[in-house]
Amino acid sequence: MHLRDLTGPEQLKRLAPAELAQLAAEIRRVILETVATNGGHLAPNLGVVELTLALHIVFDSPRDKILWDVSHQSYVHKLLTGRLHQFHTLRQFGGIAGFTDPRESVHDHFHWGHASTSISAAVGMAKARDLAGDDYEVVAVIGDGALTGGMAYEALDHAGHDKTKVIVVLNDNSMSIAPNVGGISNYLARIRTGPSYQRVKHDVAEALRQIPLIGPQALELADRLKEGVKHLLVHNMFFEDLGFTYLGPVDGHNVSALVDVLRQARAYPGPTVVHVVTTKGKGVPYAEQLPDKFHGGGPFDVATGRTGPGSLTYSEVFGNVMCKLAAEDPRVCAITAAMPSGTGLSRFARQFPDRYFDVGIAEQHAVTFAAGLAKGGMRPVFAVYSTFLQRAYDQVIHDVALQNLPVTLAIDRGGLVEDGATHQGVFDVAYLRAIPNMVVMAPKDENELQHMLYTALCHDGPAALRYPRGKAQGVPLDETLQPLPIGRGEVMQEGADVALIGLGTMARVCQEAARLLAEKSISAMVINPRFVKPLDAELLLRAGREVGAVVTVEEACLAGGFGSAVLELYAAHGVNARVERMGIPDEFVDHGQPARYLERYGLTPEGVAQRAEALLLRMRSDLAAQPARRSRSVRRLSGAKAAGNGET
Amino acid sequence: MHLRDLTGPEQLKRLAPAELAQLAAEIRRVILETVATNGGHLAPNLGVVELTLALHIVFDSPRDKILWDVSHQSYVHKLLTGRLHQFHTLRQFGGIAGFTDPRESVHDHFHWGHASTSISAAVGMAKARDLAGDDYEVVAVIGDGALTGGMAYEALDHAGHDKTKVIVVLNDNSMSIAPNVGGISNYLARIRTGPSYQRVKHDVAEALRQIPLIGPQALELADRLKEGVKHLLVHNMFFEDLGFTYLGPVDGHNVSALVDVLRQARAYPGPTVVHVVTTKGKGVPYAEQLPDKFHGGGPFDVATGRTGPGSLTYSEVFGNVMCKLAAEDPRVCAITAAMPSGTGLSRFARQFPDRYFDVGIAEQHAVTFAAGLAKGGMRPVFAVYSTFLQRAYDQVIHDVALQNLPVTLAIDRGGLVEDGATHQGVFDVAYLRAIPNMVVMAPKDENELQHMLYTALCHDGPAALRYPRGKAQGVPLDETLQPLPIGRGEVMQEGADVALIGLGTMARVCQEAARLLAEKSISAMVINPRFVKPLDAELLLRAGREVGAVVTVEEACLAGGFGSAVLELYAAHGVNARVERMGIPDEFVDHGQPARYLERYGLTPEGVAQRAEALLLRMRSDLAAQPARRSRSVRRLSGAKAAGNGET
Repeated sequence: MHLRDLTGPEQLKRLAPAELAQLAAEIRRVILETVATNGGHLAPNLGVVELTLALHIVFDSPRDKILWDVSHQSYVHKLLTGRLHQFHTLRQFGGIAGFTDPRESVHDHFHWGHASTSISAAVGMAKARDLAGDDYEVVAVIGDGALTGGMAYEALDHAGHDKTKVIVVLNDNSMSIAPNVGGISNYLARIRTGPSYQRVKHDVAEALRQIPLIGPQALELADRLKEGVKHLLVHNMFFEDLGFTYLGPVDGHNVSALVDVLRQARAYPGPTVVHVVTTKGKGVPYAEQLPDKFHGGGPFDVATGRTGPGSLTYSEVFGNVMCKLAAEDPRVCAITAAMPSGTGLSRFARQFPDRYFDVGIAEQHAVTFAAGLAKGGMRPVFAVYSTFLQRAYDQVIHDVALQNLPVTLAIDRGGLVEDGATHQGVFDVAYLRAIPNMVVMAPKDENELQHMLYTALCHDGPAALRYPRGKAQGVPLDETLQPLPIGRGEVMQEGADVALIGLGTMARVCQEAARLLAEKSISAMVINPRFVKPLDAELLLRAGREVGAVVTVEEACLAGGFGSAVLELYAAHGVNARVERMGIPDEFVDHGQPARYLERYGLTPEGVAQRAEALLLRMRSDLAAQPARRSRSVRRLSGAKAAGNGET
Repeated sequence: MHLRDLTGPEQLKRLAPAELAQLAAEIRRVILETVATNGGHLAPNLGVVELTLALHIVFDSPRDKILWDVSHQSYVHKLLTGRLHQFHTLRQFGGIAGFTDPRESVHDHFHWGHASTSISAAVGMAKARDLAGDDYEVVAVIGDGALTGGMAYEALDHAGHDKTKVIVVLNDNSMSIAPNVGGISNYLARIRTGPSYQRVKHDVAEALRQIPLIGPQALELADRLKEGVKHLLVHNMFFEDLGFTYLGPVDGHNVSALVDVLRQARAYPGPTVVHVVTTKGKGVPYAEQLPDKFHGGGPFDVATGRTGPGSLTYSEVFGNVMCKLAAEDPRVCAITAAMPSGTGLSRFARQFPDRYFDVGIAEQHAVTFAAGLAKGGMRPVFAVYSTFLQRAYDQVIHDVALQNLPVTLAIDRGGLVEDGATHQGVFDVAYLRAIPNMVVMAPKDENELQHMLYTALCHDGPAALRYPRGKAQGVPLDETLQPLPIGRGEVMQEGADVALIGLGTMARVCQEAARLLAEKSISAMVINPRFVKPLDAELLLRAGREVGAVVTVEEACLAGGFGSAVLELYAAHGVNARVERMGIPDEFVDHGQPARYLERYGLTPEGVAQRAEALLLRMRSDLAAQPARRSRSVRRLSGAKAAGNGET
């Protein structure tokens, strides 16, 4: 049986071990070749080939629900459920997603990409099943990395108490993206390296037989001893304490062993944890050796795993400045939630191990931990992807901003990324600027990022800076860092007809747009606002009052974003400017090259120039139609007897 | 020694047991009398009198840092650290806070009020201490209820791995606000009811002596058995698995036992959990019997605990409609995060136990669990306070809205509450309306709340409704529920001079304001927008275009709130209306009667009328000054050669 002949997962149940092995090898080859070309998550998928086969042998998808936590490890599942022929479009614009997505297949139940949520969803589905009197199985497959996220524990706590029948498959490769940290990780390691179940069971049974049992007290004691010994036997008390039955550990690359243990879990009436030990990157030597590098990323050479030489990314510039600042100031600390290389902190981790904290996939803790560090006199910087900071929204408000503590949020992946709807960093501007005491910045390029990070560290309160994923602009980097005046923007060029205000990297897009407008003799003022909060009221009011036509441009959601802040400012000051807001509309943005979406939304020089021009045209035609309306207003206002005249 | 003679906590160290008992009795009396008058958290504070005394005996505050999780149990601490004489102002406008607050005392380190954060902050402070080479102690006092919050586990996981010296005092009263749920709660109960440490230790040592030990294999086995027996002895593996050393359980009302175990923890070089068993409400019979009722609330009679008869609250109306809807539709489920009575769900819990889920203080899990229920065909309603929903922001985006699942968020305590900055429900409007697919509503009164809940349950996607704390308006309640048309507001009265748009309960404030304006011959249109998202564009555009002067009023933060949504709408449609936005400014709002703050912010009929009038006056004077500016604009716009004319 070849992969191309597989019509559905039910066929797997009839295959002989040799056929399954053959299929596994084919699956690895397809994944390797596709990811080498398209980029994507290599090592996590190579690690779950046999596990996915076993799951589809034991369970009847889609009747039984297999939920993949994060779901970046769902490629094998996709290949087994009818998506081989579209697989070459992985992660491309209009192609199949890098995560599960119910729009793609009935075998996918959630469209998600954040860690630690699957057990909660599984418990919910299992409860719904029980309430409906149905009997399908619900299986959550979760990595040991995702188990460091608090909500996974909240879900275990709930299901363990309720005894809801749900099967949690713990895919333990001792990695999240980087090697795991945390007490639970140490605990799992102890299980993996402990004596084998069978041997200890035999030894202890022998020993217990030798205890002389005299009288009822001794019998009670023997019972208690057995209870104690149970801990020793299966090392499972963490999960058992929470109310789960623990099965394992089992070799995650042995299909028949996996099938056996999953059948046990299926047959068991209560909640179970099946502990599966896998090797991330299994079957591809360079991926096994560097599972961190090959967790997820861009294209590479299939034979060697080498990637092309890259220019500097925003994350790298951030990491380098962090090292520079930490060398000068012993208070500077760095925190990551299991993303040392993605956030550019690997060098910092090596150079300043004492001041580097990888807290696991635990954004909530990361933020409040930072608050504690700041309270203790340090200057912590939490480097985090925009989309994951959503996890710690309450902690930013409650533990950082309310205390007005000097915690810096270095928000990477602000704006669009190719991963898709789950990873777009588009809400941060709106949700952060609502918080009192916060300073919110966005640099126009990597050089400004340097100065902004320094500004944040000099500031005696909370500050956030957001910057995009990927290659930086390639501008020269200043050696000496300067704190920027808080709440001051930059006029990139003066102009009289329209003001283009571009947040972050959109500042340069506006500059290009101004060039295009100049070709049509339209004179554009270009502003890099630098600060979302506090706004440079003086500068923005000048643009509104003197230029009158304003276009705001941001790679963030329009609802409540930077453009809205400008509208608020103008409304508060009675500035009668026409404002055109450009940004991400009210929809979830799918996967594929961000450039394709930026074009769709007009967030390009051409798009901005066009909108600016259209605005001016509309204003001209409105002005022509206005005299009648204006006199109506005057009539009405004069008629209203404002008795309180002069009071306010 | 009387409480009134105590000048600081250091004096406690010299007191004899009898003197401490006397002090404890005085403390209970002061707390009881104050809370009976002012409202507040009674039972949690009565439960920690001896624990607080012991903490201040063993540790040297403020050099040693005692962090109170949530901190509603910090009244005793406040009385012992110099705040007896202000204590009668507890929770009042300008008085001392119901939570710890560094502005009040050097003995308070965080101003907070949400659960499960203290261990994270303590680990951060302990790390900062270690980096600075200092040696003070950091102690987090956390309830077993707060331990159901995932971030507490994230913090334990981190500190257990790092072996950071931090002392976690687990105040175990088997309650959070309601009785606790969850696997961890069962686990703690097993510890409390297990055989005493001393007895088991003796029995097991005897038994082990009787095992014949022959050869090295047997020795190894004996070692392993001892390890297994350790679990049995101290039942502590949950915390030990995470890397903490466990001490306890200890009687939380025995000061000398507490002092002993806290001294052990102090002397121990690594992270410890001290398990303290307390009785919530200790010393006051009605509070011990009904610790849920006396957790936190309004004034009551000191002798009997009776509260005055109350009229219906929004929460109660919500709870009643939930019961009605659940009786009609077997898909309706209710979820709470440890707040059954606060959210009005107690009756639902009794009537529909199968469809009622108290998941513990675990908002993240609650939301994704709801997503799972919805995926499984149910119609879950998560009843949650606005401020606590901040905890689940990512889950609302990632697990509910992205899947467009029919999950209803019933957001109680939307707007101001007397508890203070940590509990204000002011960010919800801004952070929810940024999310695609969300329907966001706010009822003008409890009758509309009924219909909105029904509307949400009829809607095939996510919906949120927010309503305030406390007494409802007292309007008649319709028997038959009608789904409201999504995105349609209500004109409460027509008017020509100014449009007052009042979100939620501000609709009636606007109606009153209109009456005041009418007295001055100003004709006000009054709109109840009902929907924050989607907006009733047609109605709001009509107000903007035909009336021209618009005042938006909301009990929510101004940055990105409802008023900003109106500005966005007008900007998108080129509506040249003057908009005055009223709401909560960019600051954290302290404790005290919400009415005092509403007055300060002008969110009263008088305040709204005044702002409306002032707006009209400004518009009149601006109009007088405008002709010059207008001709300048026309000149400039005519001069700009818009070559793209007609293209867009």
